Amino acid sequence: MKKFDIYEDPHRRFNPLINEWVLVSPHRAKRPWQGQKETVANEGRPEYDPECYLCPGNVRANGEVNPLYTSSFVFENDFAALKQEEIEFEESNEATFFKAKPERGISRVVCFSPKHNITLPEMDLPTIEEIIRTWQKEYTDLGNVDYINYVQIFENKGSVMGCSNPHPHGQIWAQSSLPTQIEKTQNSLKNYFDKNGSNLLLDYLEKEIEAKERIVIENEHFVALVPFWAIWPFETLIVCKRHVTKITDFNTAEVTDYALILKQLTAKYDNLFETSFPYSSGIHQAPTDGIEHPEWLFHMHFYPPLLRSASVKKFMVGYEMMGESQRDITAEKSAQMLRDLSNIHYKSK
Amino acid sequence: MKKFDIYEDPHRRFNPLINEWVLVSPHRAKRPWQGQKETVANEGRPEYDPECYLCPGNVRANGEVNPLYTSSFVFENDFAALKQEEIEFEESNEATFFKAKPERGISRVVCFSPKHNITLPEMDLPTIEEIIRTWQKEYTDLGNVDYINYVQIFENKGSVMGCSNPHPHGQIWAQSSLPTQIEKTQNSLKNYFDKNGSNLLLDYLEKEIEAKERIVIENEHFVALVPFWAIWPFETLIVCKRHVTKITDFNTAEVTDYALILKQLTAKYDNLFETSFPYSSGIHQAPTDGIEHPEWLFHMHFYPPLLRSASVKKFMVGYEMMGESQRDITAEKSAQMLRDLSNIHYKSK
Ligand SMILES: O=P(O)(O)O[C@H]1O[C@H](CO)[C@@H](O)[C@H](O)[C@H]1O
Ligand SMILES: O=P(O)(O)O[C@H]1O[C@H](CO)[C@@H](O)[C@H](O)[C@H]1O
Repeated sequence: MKKFDIYEDPHRRFNPLINEWVLVSPHRAKRPWQGQKETVANEGRPEYDPECYLCPGNVRANGEVNPLYTSSFVFENDFAALKQEEIEFEESNEATFFKAKPERGISRVVCFSPKHNITLPEMDLPTIEEIIRTWQKEYTDLGNVDYINYVQIFENKGSVMGCSNPHPHGQIWAQSSLPTQIEKTQNSLKNYFDKNGSNLLLDYLEKEIEAKERIVIENEHFVALVPFWAIWPFETLIVCKRHVTKITDFNTAEVTDYALILKQLTAKYDNLFETSFPYSSGIHQAPTDGIEHPEWLFHMHFYPPLLRSASVKKFMVGYEMMGESQRDITAEKSAQMLRDLSNIHYKSK
Repeated sequence: MKKFDIYEDPHRRFNPLINEWVLVSPHRAKRPWQGQKETVANEGRPEYDPECYLCPGNVRANGEVNPLYTSSFVFENDFAALKQEEIEFEESNEATFFKAKPERGISRVVCFSPKHNITLPEMDLPTIEEIIRTWQKEYTDLGNVDYINYVQIFENKGSVMGCSNPHPHGQIWAQSSLPTQIEKTQNSLKNYFDKNGSNLLLDYLEKEIEAKERIVIENEHFVALVPFWAIWPFETLIVCKRHVTKITDFNTAEVTDYALILKQLTAKYDNLFETSFPYSSGIHQAPTDGIEHPEWLFHMHFYPPLLRSASVKKFMVGYEMMGESQRDITAEKSAQMLRDLSNIHYKSK
């Protein structure tokens, strides 16, 4: 009988963060593609676009005028998915089949730069450090609102990821419940902490640094790696090396190193297919529920959809929706490809 | 304080099938859209396409020639994500962080019709009944393979759902493990059955028939409804009214009614935006592990991505990936829109 070869044979891998499996089919990467091609973003954008509702000095949908901001700029989302209003609610008896409850929250937009035509890897380090300080301020301010228990910071980059405006920006949705993915992660982290008295992600990081093969970038305070259980073709995870549970606990040196790894990782992404690489990214960290959370470790997920070129993405559809997430290239191979690429953005060479 | 109005206020709903919440933001449907538009499929396809590897008599990638089939036609996937080979494997000690195991399985393609240019709602009932009988035969044959414990039947329709060939076809991935979504569903069904001595989905169906507001189509043996906890804008669920755990248990009258509801539901979908409506659909039913599964009820999910028109879809991205699934239109509103549409395909009028 043939011996199991993780680089060749179909297999499942287990994600201990959310307690779920992913199907890996390494041999399938060679499959030809005749399906949908994504349109590659037009690169010739101006530094200021009079039609853009995120550019400084322009008018937004609700009539407000953006200030002439020079670094990061935050405002309340004009089409928020969550509302601040308190709603009166009685739990119904239909607990099994028609279970619903109101959800309170605040949605904000974070412009990363006044310049309409640049993205993270093209920004200088002070600009990225300023974005991190803005995230810190928002985590504090939103987290201090009495009914807010979780602050989800994220970015959708590229039209293929549902981003409707190329002006560099992210979002924050802060709410009273722990969202599904956070609750799952918290349960896993907590179980591990209670059982082992140590931090799941710090223990995992130690093993990854030993193993080396999934590391993409390492600096003094941070590591970017392709997790063993990655779902998206070039999915990565940024983890900090010290036991920091939330973004506000980073010291100055850590903010600098975080900015640096963000710049270098996103530069590698752009370099992979010499295109502005689409992704959704998001920070997972301790809830703001007033409880100590030693089980948490600050980390940031990158879920990029591209698979083989600037125009061919991985579709998470039929089998993946009905059965289980599936990938066609191993985490080790993706990590190697990203590691071997330059840290310097191809456009600045 | 304002009283909770499920049709207006942001809220979360609970899905008892997989034990997860979805965030619903009814007020957000009015948001303008300046983002990516999908290309609407070119409708002028010939009945036979000499370039199509699924058309009768044509040559596939591996050199095999398709027979001159006249109804359904099944073959082994030339680029299967799973392989039949048995792999030797020793469980490793790295159980927490690097947990992996080989997975055996069989992937097949099911052509629905020899005609290159029609889809389910445009087929006549005998053709759809023949597809159902093909699914029955495959469920039996694959389920009888000793190492196959689950048979996942699904369809990806439309290029936006990663379908690379418009020739009407679906797929079957059969494997030794229960895929993630099946395991979750089975756990919920089993817990409910053990606790209540009845079937979760049959009890749910009873309440939905009483409530009426989420029903889209009902015939003697089947119901198509928008589940209370639907994620996708026009997501639906086809459920059978009798306690049938697997597709092979349907009698002749049920096969006919199943074909009818499939035809009518997909016709309504096409009528919604007068376009060939993309979706991923999949059948969830009892595993083929040789155990009795009274907790199961045969059902079929439809996950269509379109939101507002033939070219504007819902993106499940940043917040949805990092936090929780989110929808902008209530299940009740979607059900009403689908219910109010004709059963007859717009092209045949
Ligand atoms: O097998 P196909 O049609 O080539 O591929 C399609 O369906 C598969 C199963 O859902 C997915 O894994 C692929 O991403 C998708 O493009
Ligand atoms: O808020 P935006 O940028 O208009 O919208 C985008 O991000 C949201 C949060 O991930 C999603 O719900 C939307 O589907 C997506 O288009």
